[in-house]
Amino acid sequence: MYVVGIDLGGTFFKVGLVDAESGKILRKLERETKVNEGGDSVIQRMAEAVEEITEGIEYIGVGIGSPGSIDHDKGIVRFSPNFPGWVNFELGGLLSNKLNKPVFVENDANAFVLGEKWFGAGKGYNHIVALTLGTGVGGGVISHGMLITGHNGIGTELGHVIIEPNGPQCGCGNYGCLEALASATAIRRMALEGQKKFPESVIFQSENVDAKSVFEAAKMGDGLGKAIVDRVVNALSIGIANFIHIFNPEIIVVGGGVSRAGDILFEPIREKVQHLVMPSFKGTYKIVQSPLVEEAGILGAASVILQNVNKPK
Amino acid sequence: MYVVGIDLGGTFFKVGLVDAESGKILRKLERETKVNEGGDSVIQRMAEAVEEITEGIEYIGVGIGSPGSIDHDKGIVRFSPNFPGWVNFELGGLLSNKLNKPVFVENDANAFVLGEKWFGAGKGYNHIVALTLGTGVGGGVISHGMLITGHNGIGTELGHVIIEPNGPQCGCGNYGCLEALASATAIRRMALEGQKKFPESVIFQSENVDAKSVFEAAKMGDGLGKAIVDRVVNALSIGIANFIHIFNPEIIVVGGGVSRAGDILFEPIREKVQHLVMPSFKGTYKIVQSPLVEEAGILGAASVILQNVNKPK
Repeated sequence: MYVVGIDLGGTFFKVGLVDAESGKILRKLERETKVNEGGDSVIQRMAEAVEEITEGIEYIGVGIGSPGSIDHDKGIVRFSPNFPGWVNFELGGLLSNKLNKPVFVENDANAFVLGEKWFGAGKGYNHIVALTLGTGVGGGVISHGMLITGHNGIGTELGHVIIEPNGPQCGCGNYGCLEALASATAIRRMALEGQKKFPESVIFQSENVDAKSVFEAAKMGDGLGKAIVDRVVNALSIGIANFIHIFNPEIIVVGGGVSRAGDILFEPIREKVQHLVMPSFKGTYKIVQSPLVEEAGILGAASVILQNVNKPK
Repeated sequence: MYVVGIDLGGTFFKVGLVDAESGKILRKLERETKVNEGGDSVIQRMAEAVEEITEGIEYIGVGIGSPGSIDHDKGIVRFSPNFPGWVNFELGGLLSNKLNKPVFVENDANAFVLGEKWFGAGKGYNHIVALTLGTGVGGGVISHGMLITGHNGIGTELGHVIIEPNGPQCGCGNYGCLEALASATAIRRMALEGQKKFPESVIFQSENVDAKSVFEAAKMGDGLGKAIVDRVVNALSIGIANFIHIFNPEIIVVGGGVSRAGDILFEPIREKVQHLVMPSFKGTYKIVQSPLVEEAGILGAASVILQNVNKPK
């Protein structure tokens, strides 16, 4: 059984042909999105890419993981910051008409948790909380086997849960959101803010001041690096403990660029969360790094079609 | 169609015969729980109370709202602070055997949200967040029409979401939980803490220093009263905004003793939450005071049987 996943981004989209049983990406290609050429042109190039990648192969349908606010029942992009013209854009319907195949669209953070359920760390679980730590912080939740999206399909904005009411301002306007404390953007900001006081930090000897250089510095014992990692760990631990108390999940999967820091991030989080959860929650969950890495986008998108085709009636 | 609801408390239990169509409590009675006499004795008196109240009436079954950690699939009380002997106590099964009727058991905060869905402010909604502000802060969530309980049935501990990491200590051991900032217990604590600095506050002229006297004082313009209400409003607003971002609910229902403060609590919360939610969430929800008041316990319990009998297969 084969499905196609499209990981849609503002600059590029990636298309993959996925074997639904093994979770292997058999073929993949990447194309420029060229949003400025208009929706019809994007749809046309998407359709061509899908046809190219599925040549000679019978596939079930296409799943799309898209940034922005998605009406997943109708396959409509309500709006998406990097796609200025796409207001109530019928992404799913238009591509489905071109291909004559079912197409389902989901927000990319929701696609991520579906990807973990179908192909990643969430396999076999019905209660999964997923976080992606990238430019922003995205969240997706499966509870009782069901993707939680809320009344308007815009729920599980886990990155905008307020962790420190007096913390740094978030892009959303509020203060102390998880995104303002644990995204790659936040980590870079904290490093730059620390530069005046710690100009000697090894962070500033690396080519780029970014999440990676901060974690590298912390591993080397750098004071600023360690202080920033502490703050990120603290914010994520409070957030994850809250999500455990809310969803009582079997597993919390953390992905996105920042998650690649690995043990230096996950070990102190596990310790701190264990300390924060109430006794009845101890031993009920595990916190893991996403195993999907580079393939998370395509596999998440492919899971969108699988989840919808296999939906309980 | 008639059902029975039992609102189980550490000191008393209340039994009500409920008309499922109208939500009217046709008969009710209250008995001492007498936990110290042992589980069998409690079950016996519960059964007698149910038989008394249903005499001559055909009813579908019994729902119980119980404090503590409940295995709702099996009708078992795992443990409950005020019922020291009840460890893995088969409350549902034992009462069902006595009555020869189906009996379902649910945590009291979950029963509360079910009561709001079946008979209260949540009627007709599939996405409901409910908070009870009493001695503690309880939470219940219905998402996509389904009661969210999590993997072990212990989820939606909304009172233990951390709002102020450096806030006052909560009974659970953590700092700044919603319960430590917005329960009746927390409000009384804040008043007593303020007594040294504000001995002249009208709060201390009332017979009892409690949530009611604090809200009364605030209404009269009392400085300490207003400061405490501000802090409670602030904590609840952050909590509710978080729950909106997580669950994208149609309605947030707030009940319990503290909710009876009414407008002085709800008006500033509505204003503050409106300010805290991201643009896409504006206009998607309403925040209301529970209309069930004294009947919330029995109606919530009665809803436990209705929800289970009407469960999607």
